[in-house]
Amino acid sequence: MQRSKKNVKCKETRERNEKSNDLKALLAPRIKQIDAALANYLDDAEHAGLKKAMKHLPMAGGKRLRPIVAMLVADAIAGKGKKTIPFGVALEIIHNFTLVHDDIMDGDNLRRGIKTVHFQWDLPTAINAGDALFARAFEVLTEVDLPKDELADIVRDVARMTRKIAEGQQWDMDFERRRDVTEEEYIKMIEYKTAVIFECAARYGAVIARATKKQVDAMAEYGRLLGIGFQIWDDYLDLKGDQATIGKPVGSDIKRGKNTLIVVHAMKYTKPSDRKKLLAALGNAKVSQKDLDEVVKILECAGSIEYAGKKALGFAKRGKQLLEMLPDSEAKGTLGALIDYMVRREK
Amino acid sequence: MQRSKKNVKCKETRERNEKSNDLKALLAPRIKQIDAALANYLDDAEHAGLKKAMKHLPMAGGKRLRPIVAMLVADAIAGKGKKTIPFGVALEIIHNFTLVHDDIMDGDNLRRGIKTVHFQWDLPTAINAGDALFARAFEVLTEVDLPKDELADIVRDVARMTRKIAEGQQWDMDFERRRDVTEEEYIKMIEYKTAVIFECAARYGAVIARATKKQVDAMAEYGRLLGIGFQIWDDYLDLKGDQATIGKPVGSDIKRGKNTLIVVHAMKYTKPSDRKKLLAALGNAKVSQKDLDEVVKILECAGSIEYAGKKALGFAKRGKQLLEMLPDSEAKGTLGALIDYMVRREK
Repeated sequence: MQRSKKNVKCKETRERNEKSNDLKALLAPRIKQIDAALANYLDDAEHAGLKKAMKHLPMAGGKRLRPIVAMLVADAIAGKGKKTIPFGVALEIIHNFTLVHDDIMDGDNLRRGIKTVHFQWDLPTAINAGDALFARAFEVLTEVDLPKDELADIVRDVARMTRKIAEGQQWDMDFERRRDVTEEEYIKMIEYKTAVIFECAARYGAVIARATKKQVDAMAEYGRLLGIGFQIWDDYLDLKGDQATIGKPVGSDIKRGKNTLIVVHAMKYTKPSDRKKLLAALGNAKVSQKDLDEVVKILECAGSIEYAGKKALGFAKRGKQLLEMLPDSEAKGTLGALIDYMVRREK
Repeated sequence: MQRSKKNVKCKETRERNEKSNDLKALLAPRIKQIDAALANYLDDAEHAGLKKAMKHLPMAGGKRLRPIVAMLVADAIAGKGKKTIPFGVALEIIHNFTLVHDDIMDGDNLRRGIKTVHFQWDLPTAINAGDALFARAFEVLTEVDLPKDELADIVRDVARMTRKIAEGQQWDMDFERRRDVTEEEYIKMIEYKTAVIFECAARYGAVIARATKKQVDAMAEYGRLLGIGFQIWDDYLDLKGDQATIGKPVGSDIKRGKNTLIVVHAMKYTKPSDRKKLLAALGNAKVSQKDLDEVVKILECAGSIEYAGKKALGFAKRGKQLLEMLPDSEAKGTLGALIDYMVRREK
């Protein structure tokens, strides 16, 4: 019995890996184009040292998910993926600027397997490199292939989106000091911190491909749901992922005191004695492995981990349904595979 | 003789103060409009705590010089000053965002007589509030009263300008570790750090007032020269200003190791033994008052302080000449008074 269960699990993992490899193969030519454009756009700075600090993180890899979403949507609407490149690159630069600053705020010294900017250089250079990336993103944004009189809309929306990311980050930090966060508050926080950029990517991927208003709205919602699912799955992986695969110890978010959907659920549905144990571990960097294991067990028993996993799947499912209005194409299939991947990935 | 010299100096100071008060009176109605718009634009944020941190510095005063320049130029060209308000506010927000981040980089705890954001709140909130201000500036910028198809130009130029400010700030920090900075390098650094935003203010003040290309270029150059003169005068005040008036001890820049035009000049024109004393004081926060006084004397004797003061006046003079092409008006006169003030002010 045990053996056959293990076999089933192995088969599942194998299939998942195959699907993930298929997706990678599908995305590879697009990623290549995005990488080339990104490198090119980031080469345009005058201060050699600052340029190096600006390029450090964006050139160290990353999945390019935001430009990919914009490109796939435009391809699925009208085969216009290529037209989204400056826009996608602008979003990727904004994403990287937020990471450079977030790493300072969170005190993280490593990302993508390399030293973070403030750790490799220093705090002032990291703040400044982030600011310069932010500015560069808006320079790139003005090169978007849209009628000139529509550029104000995209600039305003991207600027508003970036402000929302800052607000989401602030709520995320606030919530580390609170233990009464509601699910609604949590969802709004991750919507701002993570989902708005996917929403924007999908919306303007559609706009650039000259989609109908109905299509634009549907794609924006697809992006939003994908982003929310993605973030919840991230929280899920912190407890259910494989330490070697995700690259950090299981339960890191607990130690940090992050308010994830799992914690929000558990605070509501665990008995007082269990809640006490959870509270003692939350934000306690020195919690013992034994206590952490017990907290994970509590979260399992309360169904909090499964709850989050299912929620992520639910958002992805709703997102996928929105794709149905698009004509069949390779890009449409890839958008479906992408949202599946987002809530099934192992890292 | 001594007595009569003192009387002359008193008369000069009195006249200067009168002129400065006249200028203040001339600017007051415009500043009032800018302040109201700024308060209004900064009210549009969802995270209450972050909004407070965002408003902290901009609402604590400031001379509003950048929006004032844009407004005066547009008034002088075609009486269109009011039309520049969203643009000027966007620049003022960008200016304030750079101050919030610069205060972190420089470790300053006070500005405009109040605690800096990172000191009043914390480092993450200050980084985040700066980022949110930056984003907000681009939202406001899309409301500029220009034909829609011209907005891409202004967004690109303002974004490029902001990147240059980051590059200038990085050079400024680099130069603190170098003692071989040339005058050319110093001028480029302050052009980026300080002058580009005045250049942009004056340029788009003219554009918004629908000036001719020749007028636009002349006004942009006026702004650039004003910005450079302003910054050199700032360096001059550090050594020649009155401690109580400028609000910091004389020679603060020396202690900090800032490379000002005065230092650049002195490194070239002082004898080795004096240069050695200067080098020992530069960047030495614990330098004794006696040693600092001696360094100031060395700088006086080498003519370095006077050199910087005269340079500032020279830039202002060139800037003022550019105003001659404008039709006579109150705004034109005020632009002249403003550039005079910039290189004669006492704080």
